[in-house]
Amino acid sequence: MKSTMMPIPLSINAIVTRARVLFPKSEIVSRLPDKFVCRHLYADIAARIDALAHALAALGVQRHDRVATLCWNHHAHLECYFGIPLTGAVMHTLNLRLAPEEIGWIADHAKDRILVVDDILLPLYREVAKHYAFEHVIVFPFSGAPVANEFQDYERMIAPYLGVPFAPQPHDENDPIAICYTSGTTGRPKGVVYSHRSTMLHSLVACMPDSWALRGSDVLLPVTPMFHANCWGAPYAALLTGARVVFPGPNLHPEDLLDIITAEQPSLALGVTTIWLGIIQAMEVKPGKWTLPRGMRSVVGGSAVPESLIRAFAAHGVDVCQGWGMTETSPLATMSYIKPELREATPEEKFQRKALAGVPVPLIDLRLISDRGEVEWDGNSVGEVQVRGPYVTGGYHDLPPDPDKHAADGWLRTGDVASVDALGYLRITDRTKDLIKSGGEWISSVELENALMAHPAIAEAAVIAVPHEKWVERPIACIVFKQGRTATPEALNAHLAGQFAKWQLPDRYEILDVLPRTSTGKFWKLKLRERFPR
Amino acid sequence: MKSTMMPIPLSINAIVTRARVLFPKSEIVSRLPDKFVCRHLYADIAARIDALAHALAALGVQRHDRVATLCWNHHAHLECYFGIPLTGAVMHTLNLRLAPEEIGWIADHAKDRILVVDDILLPLYREVAKHYAFEHVIVFPFSGAPVANEFQDYERMIAPYLGVPFAPQPHDENDPIAICYTSGTTGRPKGVVYSHRSTMLHSLVACMPDSWALRGSDVLLPVTPMFHANCWGAPYAALLTGARVVFPGPNLHPEDLLDIITAEQPSLALGVTTIWLGIIQAMEVKPGKWTLPRGMRSVVGGSAVPESLIRAFAAHGVDVCQGWGMTETSPLATMSYIKPELREATPEEKFQRKALAGVPVPLIDLRLISDRGEVEWDGNSVGEVQVRGPYVTGGYHDLPPDPDKHAADGWLRTGDVASVDALGYLRITDRTKDLIKSGGEWISSVELENALMAHPAIAEAAVIAVPHEKWVERPIACIVFKQGRTATPEALNAHLAGQFAKWQLPDRYEILDVLPRTSTGKFWKLKLRERFPR
Repeated sequence: MKSTMMPIPLSINAIVTRARVLFPKSEIVSRLPDKFVCRHLYADIAARIDALAHALAALGVQRHDRVATLCWNHHAHLECYFGIPLTGAVMHTLNLRLAPEEIGWIADHAKDRILVVDDILLPLYREVAKHYAFEHVIVFPFSGAPVANEFQDYERMIAPYLGVPFAPQPHDENDPIAICYTSGTTGRPKGVVYSHRSTMLHSLVACMPDSWALRGSDVLLPVTPMFHANCWGAPYAALLTGARVVFPGPNLHPEDLLDIITAEQPSLALGVTTIWLGIIQAMEVKPGKWTLPRGMRSVVGGSAVPESLIRAFAAHGVDVCQGWGMTETSPLATMSYIKPELREATPEEKFQRKALAGVPVPLIDLRLISDRGEVEWDGNSVGEVQVRGPYVTGGYHDLPPDPDKHAADGWLRTGDVASVDALGYLRITDRTKDLIKSGGEWISSVELENALMAHPAIAEAAVIAVPHEKWVERPIACIVFKQGRTATPEALNAHLAGQFAKWQLPDRYEILDVLPRTSTGKFWKLKLRERFPR
Repeated sequence: MKSTMMPIPLSINAIVTRARVLFPKSEIVSRLPDKFVCRHLYADIAARIDALAHALAALGVQRHDRVATLCWNHHAHLECYFGIPLTGAVMHTLNLRLAPEEIGWIADHAKDRILVVDDILLPLYREVAKHYAFEHVIVFPFSGAPVANEFQDYERMIAPYLGVPFAPQPHDENDPIAICYTSGTTGRPKGVVYSHRSTMLHSLVACMPDSWALRGSDVLLPVTPMFHANCWGAPYAALLTGARVVFPGPNLHPEDLLDIITAEQPSLALGVTTIWLGIIQAMEVKPGKWTLPRGMRSVVGGSAVPESLIRAFAAHGVDVCQGWGMTETSPLATMSYIKPELREATPEEKFQRKALAGVPVPLIDLRLISDRGEVEWDGNSVGEVQVRGPYVTGGYHDLPPDPDKHAADGWLRTGDVASVDALGYLRITDRTKDLIKSGGEWISSVELENALMAHPAIAEAAVIAVPHEKWVERPIACIVFKQGRTATPEALNAHLAGQFAKWQLPDRYEILDVLPRTSTGKFWKLKLRERFPR
């Protein structure tokens, strides 16, 4: 017996059709480098996407060619998300926060033929060009200035095709549409290649009420850069629903974000933990200057979200929801929503759950593996998080299988160490490489950091291991005080004492002006370990 | 270049794992024939699903064998939804409202090997058995009475396997899991075969915030029978999210439904239009006896939902959302939610939109085709609705392609006639076979019916065509008055006069005590046409 269902492939091209036909009047808002905003209707964006596909085809772009982007978050970058795959080519988002040599290395590894670059990023491009030569460089006049003759002008290139529908070729749903390189804190960056299928499945899961709960009436602010894990898949999910999208452009300082939040009133914002730490600090420094939209949801990921941060936003009427995932998982793998059995829980219990990494979303299988095999979900036992699913990567572009990255039975080894409680909530305790082993016992850097960031004087905290003759390793805490605040090591130890055993407390506190950040906005512990080798 | 994503097939077996692992404490509530309720935890249901799979395997059930059900809505029927596919077999829900001969014909066409039947339906089974012999008959003791020795006892069959995990075989995502026969108002019933893939995709789409917005904290009441289009896919979607499910059992009179709504406080109820017409009438007859749960959503489909019904429920704090679809579309194809561009619309405008069949959901393509080709979406032009998508049927089980059912390019011909407005809202004006052509002009029976049901004296209305010498066809209206109410034909014509031209008004009104229903609860116009041939 055979299913009678139509063999229709999943396709992100259908999202463009949907945007054009069903949501022509929905808006895409982009903040420009001069902080003015421009507004486009989905109808215009859909026409520009088709025009971009025509222009790329005219340039000679072939099926599965790589077309790279080096851009901030704005409407033209969104056009690349859909226009490049429409031609059958693969979008490659380059991370503008990496070193030029590394960007060049990645472009070379991916064999990018064409680059779309913001005009304000041309100084960076010129550095990259010393390491890799693109066949064509298309400049998006983001600042509004004229584009130099040596480059192709994005707007001039698409103009002749505006209003001309582009008919995409039929394709397999497993065909590639985008490649994204992991930030690679160890070893060289590695490419994850997404397909029509994986992207459509991720979009459906991300929209679910217990995930982002994204609907057409939402106003979505992706602070997450479009060069990080495909902006968490937000561009695809947004156009699927018809939501208004607000792109913040290159100005991402907390005060700039608060300005655009006030002006555009998002109902849902996406961004990494450090962004929200910065926002809450800015609000504390200038109380009363900004009012957050009541009922705004904020999906936060990239690193553990301290409970203190969730409570601080709750006081402003904002619901912070933690998600966990990575480039390799498209990225949404777990969400920290309130499960049905917690319906009657106290607000206290709910806050505690929301501070966990969350529950596996549909289509994602999750397990914990230790030296002794699979670890029980008892809330205490820890193991490496391994995941599996139709939008999880099973390998890396042009690299042989790596047993450090995938288990023998194919599950992805995430490198995160965690426990899962009886209700299925994941608690990340560390990255494998950040683990602190003191006298044969593990100390969780993440738990120490969360507790420190709950101290009223501390803005940011990162805990690292330093070598120790007797105990092998000992924790030290690198902290940044809030403006005008301070605390003694004794006071900080006293603050931690209720929650931690004495041997788990940091050996010392290093006071810094700012914590170094990785290219994806996480605290960069590698740099801290280099600075504090002992 | 190849996608690096894992080749993991979509599988409804993953829903069972998810139910067991993540939502063990969620509840399945079933109302028994004696109107008492029994409660099971998902953990128990998951164990019973595994046990059912073991028991079926022990009976010799093979991959792709058909296992039929003849059951009301209850937990054991839910177990069949998952336990049968777990063995690799295909669940076949038989419609207990059909004539025994027809049920037998369908079972024969599907080549059902095994039947699971409610004990209270054994009288019907004995009639069916005259037309078709199942190899095994498993009786579910729904009433609690002992099962006669001539049958297998469902509970005794699964008991030895309770607590024994069932390991399903690997499968392709296109493998069949369920077959459902269309009610076949014309010609013989035809079988639609769903796959793992189509069912999982439909579940994700159904859960989306602009579809049913189903989440773990919901309490779902599927009044829709489990033998209609797989209960609209609700069992799969519910277990995916962990929602509490309330199955109403065999007692479906409006007062019985109001009792269980009051007792179990559903947040989301699914059912056909006629069910909700009955409920609102019962509430008008006994005002104050029942209070509907505030904020309850009700997804209504199966036939057009009169605006008057939506308004009547709104007055009780219930949000009626219209959906449109059919067995062939799994079924959800359009939903009548409020689109983003209507955010600022008046309540009046919003009611008008909610009374339309809605907007195509993700993964569904929709077009209107008339004799002159594709029809524009202008809100006036009508054509046959044709749809396409990965959970739409491309044919029927064991039948050759039929140009009456599928267009030459593969789109499903739904047999519904409709217009679509500029915002993408579908307005069904008729079934192809219910169209009234008077003097060369079309009259919409659906619009006349909706207007009549908005009259304060009318409970139900169905408009049919009768032959006419001069005008070819003329409409007549078959109406049922509300208890204790009446109105003259002149008054009814006056009521319609504002909305319709004089030549569109019914030639006469036939007053009935009750309108005949099809096996899926729609007004049965075929029977009315037989009764009023002229």
